[in-house]
Amino acid sequence: MNDLEVWRIKIDEIDLQLVKLLNDRARYATEIGKIKLTLGLDAYSPRREEEVMKHVTTHSAGPLSTQAIRRLFERIIDESRSIERIYMHERENKRTR
Amino acid sequence: MNDLEVWRIKIDEIDLQLVKLLNDRARYATEIGKIKLTLGLDAYSPRREEEVMKHVTTHSAGPLSTQAIRRLFERIIDESRSIERIYMHERENKRTR
Repeated sequence: MNDLEVWRIKIDEIDLQLVKLLNDRARYATEIGKIKLTLGLDAYSPRREEEVMKHVTTHSAGPLSTQAIRRLFERIIDESRSIERIYMHERENKRTR
Repeated sequence: MNDLEVWRIKIDEIDLQLVKLLNDRARYATEIGKIKLTLGLDAYSPRREEEVMKHVTTHSAGPLSTQAIRRLFERIIDESRSIERIYMHERENKRTR
């Protein structure tokens, strides 16, 4: 095995952890959707999203730049919000059916 | 503390782990950049990127859809490739100066 393959295996291992965490995050987002539905709140919460951004950029030690972390979490937040919204609509439809 | 806050704290914890892993992945990408420079290879490797996509979509247990996982990893791969490229250019410039 050459050095390139060694590092690629390390990346593959990280990716499996990322996939797990991203799915956990999405699952938690559906739990939040459940609560928001009860409270009559919308899935989109700009103040909370800015709080998340501040949290992750403050805690990043690099080498990714603040801009890169922001771009990554824009996508992550977007996917969490989408799944939260899908979940909320499904529930709403069931309720009104 | 209300239920919404409890889930948000859980998400904050996941986000710290995500930030760490994303930075680790970026660091590994610079190591790969180092090797590619020695071998005269470009940072962009479409076959490897497709392999990464296949790996993550195959190992995802949901609730994120395959499309969502693909969108997330398009961003993750893109940021890793960028940092790999920046690193390679810096090295190349030092060498030719």
